Amino acid sequence: MNVLMDSVLRDTRTVTPSLILDFNVIKQTYDRFLAAMPGSTVYYAVKANANPQVLQLVVDKGAGLEIASLAELERSLDAGATGERIICSNPIKNPIFLERMHREGVYAMTVDSTFEVEKVARYAPGSRVYVRLAVDNTGSVLPLAGKFGVDGDEALKLFDLARDLGLQPIGLSFHVGSQCLSVNNWVNAIRACGEVWQVAAARGHRLHFLDIGGGFPAGHYHTPSIPTIEGIGAAVMDAVAHYIPRDDLQILALEPGRGLVGESGRLVVSVVGKAKRGSDEWLYLDAGVFNGLMETYEGFPPVVHLLSDDAAERPTMRYTLAGPSCDSCDVIARGVELPEVHIGDRLVFLDAGAYTNEYAAAFNGFPIPRWVALNVGEADREPAVGD
Amino acid sequence: MNVLMDSVLRDTRTVTPSLILDFNVIKQTYDRFLAAMPGSTVYYAVKANANPQVLQLVVDKGAGLEIASLAELERSLDAGATGERIICSNPIKNPIFLERMHREGVYAMTVDSTFEVEKVARYAPGSRVYVRLAVDNTGSVLPLAGKFGVDGDEALKLFDLARDLGLQPIGLSFHVGSQCLSVNNWVNAIRACGEVWQVAAARGHRLHFLDIGGGFPAGHYHTPSIPTIEGIGAAVMDAVAHYIPRDDLQILALEPGRGLVGESGRLVVSVVGKAKRGSDEWLYLDAGVFNGLMETYEGFPPVVHLLSDDAAERPTMRYTLAGPSCDSCDVIARGVELPEVHIGDRLVFLDAGAYTNEYAAAFNGFPIPRWVALNVGEADREPAVGD
Repeated sequence: MNVLMDSVLRDTRTVTPSLILDFNVIKQTYDRFLAAMPGSTVYYAVKANANPQVLQLVVDKGAGLEIASLAELERSLDAGATGERIICSNPIKNPIFLERMHREGVYAMTVDSTFEVEKVARYAPGSRVYVRLAVDNTGSVLPLAGKFGVDGDEALKLFDLARDLGLQPIGLSFHVGSQCLSVNNWVNAIRACGEVWQVAAARGHRLHFLDIGGGFPAGHYHTPSIPTIEGIGAAVMDAVAHYIPRDDLQILALEPGRGLVGESGRLVVSVVGKAKRGSDEWLYLDAGVFNGLMETYEGFPPVVHLLSDDAAERPTMRYTLAGPSCDSCDVIARGVELPEVHIGDRLVFLDAGAYTNEYAAAFNGFPIPRWVALNVGEADREPAVGD
Repeated sequence: MNVLMDSVLRDTRTVTPSLILDFNVIKQTYDRFLAAMPGSTVYYAVKANANPQVLQLVVDKGAGLEIASLAELERSLDAGATGERIICSNPIKNPIFLERMHREGVYAMTVDSTFEVEKVARYAPGSRVYVRLAVDNTGSVLPLAGKFGVDGDEALKLFDLARDLGLQPIGLSFHVGSQCLSVNNWVNAIRACGEVWQVAAARGHRLHFLDIGGGFPAGHYHTPSIPTIEGIGAAVMDAVAHYIPRDDLQILALEPGRGLVGESGRLVVSVVGKAKRGSDEWLYLDAGVFNGLMETYEGFPPVVHLLSDDAAERPTMRYTLAGPSCDSCDVIARGVELPEVHIGDRLVFLDAGAYTNEYAAAFNGFPIPRWVALNVGEADREPAVGD
């Protein structure tokens, strides 16, 4: 489906493990978000992949950035973003980070506790703030509920407190959970926001900002049951029209991370060992939980293929896939169906553009995947390679 | 209990998060291992903490090193270790690593599958090999069973295959699981090794190497139910005398990682935020699962104290501890009893000398703990600080 990507994956000179990103896919995906949710603003969730080339592309496309830390702010500014194109959706921020965001004119930041409202008022006085509502995460692969978010009553109290402390309450945000497979999560969350919004308006808060967070799933192209950007977008636009006062809303914010960059990446690895243990067939790869595939340990099922011209002729097997370290936690997946695999064969993990190198450590001496960027710019026809 | 450590922990100029290691504790712990298991050889498991200063100390003390990868081999050689002081207990090794170990004269390496025996014979011909037995991991905090190890019958087949392919089968190894709290695991494993050893001897294999692996737990000094090095050592020496033919055994190998360096380290962190969510009190720290406390996500219960002169006067609370990232997986522990904690307070995690910075990634822009080494050498009275 992608000739350049395919040729790099199959080129045995490509060092393994390598993370190969096709920037054309990111560009096309960005355009799909805007087309699916007309008038919205994409704030790319930097945590998904903070590589400078990715941030540069996002800024060049005119998107905003969603950050969580001082280092992410600096990387965003380095990529050419200005403060008013940046929001911070981390509900917990340290004083140095707050002061710096204030100085750079970051557009707005989230709060979800009285402690945080007080901290923001002290270190970033006068800031625009939005409150994160806790919403149903059922149906997402990695639920985010529990650690962040408040209910509607608490949100109203935080609006009042923020106003009392000289901050500007501007709206609401939520997060449906990472890789969310249920479109209804967005609809229900937007309805919940609408209810809070109406009461807040009646209390004199003039809201204009609705941040529907991330959670946009990758992988519809190989798993049709995964919702599309277009399908989610239609439901979101319908819910917004229904539940959010039309004249109030000025900014409909999206925070795709995986949703924007996930499908652009492939992780190519080598099989370095095999073992039959009881009735289980084990494959040991040169990337594992610690050096690139941490999400599998969090419960994310990988989509993996054998890279071989004779794959179709080999018998189908069921494998346990393990990483290269001596750590027993370093098991990627069990019961994975693949054509019979030999030592030295290469496998490719799809949808690896997000949370691969970001989570990775060179534990036990096994290197983090090399970085290969394809189609970075019109004039850049050679793949960019780096560590 | 340690004046220098305590003064650094309580010095508000100490940046957080910082990982502070007292090298005197490592030296004393090394001596305790040798005293508890006379005649044994310590092969420090480099994966636990591969900081060059730690490796240098280990080599200077005369210990060996246990490695798993090319990068760990290079770090060991850089620290002054020679090949004959190094063993490799990673059952899966890539060809480049095998060739390099062969060239450097690494003393021995483990195998636990026919594929691996063939690979070692091809890329490191003539090498000494030992077979890893799968043993009971019940009672260890982080069981290692499943990914590695074979039963006795398979071990005997691998000895025969290794001999047939020109390798030198020298012995057996096992791993009781990380932070093993049951002394009987070592005893049972050594008995299992003894049974295989006797049959192997009858088949003409002249074994001389028994590697009892790692798993030595840290923390007896604060939790008396955790076994001591001395208690484990007495049981091990007794079991070895009982089950392993006395005239055969030349090398009794230990692979302490956490057991050697764990108690030497303290991780000091700051509290950057608080929230009350339902009935739960949350504390948000500047180190979490991704940037230093990954082991807590694997199920390892942290031991954490409040650093405050008035700690005794504060009411006791129960907290959920979370890391700084936006990731909901970044929750360190729940139901932790601490004196009431305020934003800006500092906490210290004990027994942080192993698997802290090794597992860490700067995900979401939150930095890996700074490194502070105390008592590195007699002449070195100033703490060494670095990134």
